[in-house]
Amino acid sequence: MPILGLSRIAGEPAEPSGRAFRAIDPAADAYLPPEFHAATPEQARQACELAARAAEAFADTPPLRRAEFLRSLAGRLLDAESELVERADNETALGSTRLKCELARTAAQLNLFAEELEDGSWLDARVETADPQRLPTPKPDHRSICRPVGPVAVFASSLYPFAHSVIGCDAAGALAAGCPVVVKAHPAHPGTSALIASIVAGELAAARLPAGAFSVLFDDGDDTGRELVTHPEVCAVAYSGTRKGGRALTALAAARERPIPVYAEMGAANPVFLLPGALRFRPDAIAAELHESFTHNAGQTASRPGLVFLVAGEDSDAFLDRLARAVRATPALPMLSPGAHAAYQAVLSARAHDADLRVLAAGPREGCGAWAAAPALFFTDAAAFRGRADLGDEVRGPLALVVQCVDKTDMMQTARMLPGALAAAVYAETLESGMASRLMRVLSDKAGRVVFNGATSGVEVSRAVVHGGPYPATSDGRSTSMGSVSLQRFTRRVCYQNHPDDMLPAELRDANPTGIPRLVDGLYCISPIDRRT
Amino acid sequence: MPILGLSRIAGEPAEPSGRAFRAIDPAADAYLPPEFHAATPEQARQACELAARAAEAFADTPPLRRAEFLRSLAGRLLDAESELVERADNETALGSTRLKCELARTAAQLNLFAEELEDGSWLDARVETADPQRLPTPKPDHRSICRPVGPVAVFASSLYPFAHSVIGCDAAGALAAGCPVVVKAHPAHPGTSALIASIVAGELAAARLPAGAFSVLFDDGDDTGRELVTHPEVCAVAYSGTRKGGRALTALAAARERPIPVYAEMGAANPVFLLPGALRFRPDAIAAELHESFTHNAGQTASRPGLVFLVAGEDSDAFLDRLARAVRATPALPMLSPGAHAAYQAVLSARAHDADLRVLAAGPREGCGAWAAAPALFFTDAAAFRGRADLGDEVRGPLALVVQCVDKTDMMQTARMLPGALAAAVYAETLESGMASRLMRVLSDKAGRVVFNGATSGVEVSRAVVHGGPYPATSDGRSTSMGSVSLQRFTRRVCYQNHPDDMLPAELRDANPTGIPRLVDGLYCISPIDRRT
Repeated sequence: MPILGLSRIAGEPAEPSGRAFRAIDPAADAYLPPEFHAATPEQARQACELAARAAEAFADTPPLRRAEFLRSLAGRLLDAESELVERADNETALGSTRLKCELARTAAQLNLFAEELEDGSWLDARVETADPQRLPTPKPDHRSICRPVGPVAVFASSLYPFAHSVIGCDAAGALAAGCPVVVKAHPAHPGTSALIASIVAGELAAARLPAGAFSVLFDDGDDTGRELVTHPEVCAVAYSGTRKGGRALTALAAARERPIPVYAEMGAANPVFLLPGALRFRPDAIAAELHESFTHNAGQTASRPGLVFLVAGEDSDAFLDRLARAVRATPALPMLSPGAHAAYQAVLSARAHDADLRVLAAGPREGCGAWAAAPALFFTDAAAFRGRADLGDEVRGPLALVVQCVDKTDMMQTARMLPGALAAAVYAETLESGMASRLMRVLSDKAGRVVFNGATSGVEVSRAVVHGGPYPATSDGRSTSMGSVSLQRFTRRVCYQNHPDDMLPAELRDANPTGIPRLVDGLYCISPIDRRT
Repeated sequence: MPILGLSRIAGEPAEPSGRAFRAIDPAADAYLPPEFHAATPEQARQACELAARAAEAFADTPPLRRAEFLRSLAGRLLDAESELVERADNETALGSTRLKCELARTAAQLNLFAEELEDGSWLDARVETADPQRLPTPKPDHRSICRPVGPVAVFASSLYPFAHSVIGCDAAGALAAGCPVVVKAHPAHPGTSALIASIVAGELAAARLPAGAFSVLFDDGDDTGRELVTHPEVCAVAYSGTRKGGRALTALAAARERPIPVYAEMGAANPVFLLPGALRFRPDAIAAELHESFTHNAGQTASRPGLVFLVAGEDSDAFLDRLARAVRATPALPMLSPGAHAAYQAVLSARAHDADLRVLAAGPREGCGAWAAAPALFFTDAAAFRGRADLGDEVRGPLALVVQCVDKTDMMQTARMLPGALAAAVYAETLESGMASRLMRVLSDKAGRVVFNGATSGVEVSRAVVHGGPYPATSDGRSTSMGSVSLQRFTRRVCYQNHPDDMLPAELRDANPTGIPRLVDGLYCISPIDRRT
């Protein structure tokens, strides 16, 4: 496929009116062709207006038709794997293994959403049948269901050119839920975005779904984003990026005449707790898993661990020696952008001169390209950590901070003070399951996902997964940006009172013609309803 | 019971340190004893800190124990009916019939929440079993459940001294979900609030639940509210009141270092559409129902209709004559506060001089007390209405605006431009169900609840109800403030990955010991799980 450097509005390539920019190859520190054109404010508004015009028709498409579209799209993305991965690797240097895996996960997510649409549990359909004989007043018939909220503005992430980008979890989830989408593509991988946009638009047309349901806008600045979040027709915002970016969007959305929800996933220093028994019996395996987890992809994954807690002792010392050796043997990897690289280098040098910290290990700095990031392992003690809220902040890059606790009490006290995280993990042996349980309980108030004896990274997209968590991990701790439950972000429940059967949405009719599970008078069932009359 | 004029912090009466104020009898325009003391900022902070300290233990109480507490509390409230209704009537002049009915609904809501806790569907428990053989990577075991978010600040409403006050839907819902609550009592009914606070604290103690889970603070100003919303330990805010108040709280919450969700129900001019057939065949019944719906309790109910749409014609004229006669025959009723009365009078006089409006009818102004509000019926046409966004705003008081449309197309066009509402209604005959269906479809994008052939007022508290709706009806259109689904406001989903069975919350264990419905590998069931190992 040729890569057009143009935004795509309601399926069609837009005029090349805006400022030009190019993608960069991070490994070679060189510009990549072709030239891209930033969307103009008029183009951004046009995309929003076409989305709004398509909203009603798109919301009313049968879920099975949207499911078919998602499945077919998943197939087309996998068919285009070599082309997509090649371009994405040129633009991100994330490597073809990781990128193939990410593309497969993106397709799996589309298929999971299709399954949700076929299954219907995401609608959370509820029926309370009437009781005309009830005293003092008759009980009405109430039926409610989750409905699409309307046009959604999606901000693609730089970290995941497939899974959190043009047709990543946010855009795919909004489309699955029946909401038109206007994506602000990430300027770090515009070519990949253009290829995917063309595939999505083609599939949407093939499925005879409204073209206005999907637009992708390029911009290497902030104007397009501001236009989208403040557009009166936009009903929700999904974002994946930095805390600063997330808070800026949240503030913009809150100041609107009609405020709208912002689902910003902003990253976190996900904590890992290594209990003494685990370090005694499995030091090698844990060191290897942890090392891989925080250094792979140059530490540019959302759920990598950034904080490692352990209790002082011989086993801990031996474990840290192993971990430090692994870090020293790890080659530097290119980061996604000059900005990301500069930010990481600034943290490295600040921490190297931080009186509360000690450098346990640092990888060799010579690596592939100008933006190579060397992994680093820092060390502090729990008392110092508790006095420094900034040490609990996320650092984007292959860096972990080891926090040594005096004993288990010290560890529990420190756990209680942690900020919100996307994920947390505890490594423990059976003999210390009491301590592990207490820790897990505290961590369930801190994170969206709590892992036992495993790495936080490598999120499985499932019906039960939570990829979210309390602030600052996200701007909305009630939400998840991945998995089945993520569809809820793009819905609003509507209750129908005393409607005749044929005026109800199909999913709420007596006969349950779409065969979805419903909570009828308090019980889940798929059986039809005998209306008392 | 004696009425103590003191805030109640973690169950205990607080020191009378703050500024003194008194309740007012709106019918007599006279102060009522005793003297109440506004909470000091220190007392507000203390309540939040005690709530935070109780949060973990309260979240971990078995749901069945909280259910028992709620059921017992419902019984105690009904036992105290005569005392509660008498004081509430003195403070609000809403009348004992309405107040008894409201108290019954408040008790019904407590019992519904108890049923939810016994039943368990509110937890939306989900299990995805592992597949260790899956390639290229094993599939982990994921189990997730909705957990309490932590301390909730609740702002009581002036309109509902029982159903949206100290133990109304917000406070009861938060307690049901396992969240400690700090209530800012409404200064319009402090005596009622004090009586209920004492009953709730007694029942909490009797159920051996943590005292810190419940505090009630008095204040006739804004300081306590500001203290609660900005307190670092508060995790969510629920409010019922004006748009101005709701937006102020939302802005405060968004500006916090850790932003928190605000569930503000801010009212709306709920629209009612009267199709020609309905007006031809049922003019009397509809006029009577509509009149009662917007004038009862001096128009001080959240879901009363404020906008009435009809198509010009003989039947409409005859109907409006009937409705106008009913309005002229309606005695004035006292409003809840001098502020509410003054605001209503200001709207009345502005609208009387509004060139776009015509006064169809006005009730007699002499009534019971200085704050008596006479009902009023205004008239305009759809074209004028569409040009004036302010005419779609809520007016608190017994006022309705009739909007006459040229034809059904004019009516549909006007419906599409409506702002968000809590509820909407369509009256139609079978012969016009096509038009009714199209209207209902549009209204489902505008309101939380859409009623067919019935009044919007008189909300049934059910498992399927939505008492919410798009802005400006609420600050968070995804939520409902009443019914089973309202519990979701106070929860956050947590996912447990690869946990040993005995470290999981009981609701997620293989054996399903609490017998709740769970979505296991995509199917709802209560059966135990065979773990593949």
